[in-house]
Amino acid sequence: MDEHPALVVIGHVESPLTEPSLAPRQGSEGAPDAWLVFRDAVRDGLRELSVGDEIIVLTWLHRAARDTLRVHPRDDLSRPLTGVFSTRSADRPNPIGLHPVRILEVEDGVRFQVRGMEAVDGTPIVDVKPVIRASGT
Amino acid sequence: MDEHPALVVIGHVESPLTEPSLAPRQGSEGAPDAWLVFRDAVRDGLRELSVGDEIIVLTWLHRAARDTLRVHPRDDLSRPLTGVFSTRSADRPNPIGLHPVRILEVEDGVRFQVRGMEAVDGTPIVDVKPVIRASGT
Repeated sequence: MDEHPALVVIGHVESPLTEPSLAPRQGSEGAPDAWLVFRDAVRDGLRELSVGDEIIVLTWLHRAARDTLRVHPRDDLSRPLTGVFSTRSADRPNPIGLHPVRILEVEDGVRFQVRGMEAVDGTPIVDVKPVIRASGT
Repeated sequence: MDEHPALVVIGHVESPLTEPSLAPRQGSEGAPDAWLVFRDAVRDGLRELSVGDEIIVLTWLHRAARDTLRVHPRDDLSRPLTGVFSTRSADRPNPIGLHPVRILEVEDGVRFQVRGMEAVDGTPIVDVKPVIRASGT
């Protein structure tokens, strides 16, 4: 079995956030609106997404430290060192970000404005999933 | 920027489910209990996880078809073809599975029995995150 599966980048985040140290920790903590800009190659997969939809965007947090296994949660040194799998730290072996956001606007089928995205400008996007409701898809 | 980031496999699922076509679509649809078995190399990152914790397990659905962009949701041919990013289909450019589960038992710091895991036996694990509550970590 392949022990190093390779991701493909399907798009990027366009955001006024450029400095990771200034970005909010979670989208609910004052993150600005941002654009998800997808590659034309995945256009057919996006066609049913529309304004108002709640989605989970999966990103690759490319600036993270992948050899980190213990952190002070939220960089608060008064909190004890904690295993990364009990935190939402970006620093972890596979720095995949999960971002629940709502679609505000769609342009040209591959540009989606969303509310509450805390990833910095240029962050690679690797997947989008619907928020599961009772009916399930 | 690296357009093909490589994941590292941090563990595997041990489950009585061996046949993808017989696995439930979501963990809430009758999935059996399973074991998450992690590599010793990530032990330090797991230390604070304990029985009763609700976590999100991220897997690499290694049997998926990565060139699929449109599917009939839940393989129901009566439902129209839909973009994969509006569905939870495993077939998608980056087949990352999200599995919300609860920890039932911990053995030796690297084996975690969980409830409601629909991934088949041998599925690679790539990350674990806490379910975010109001306080946030």
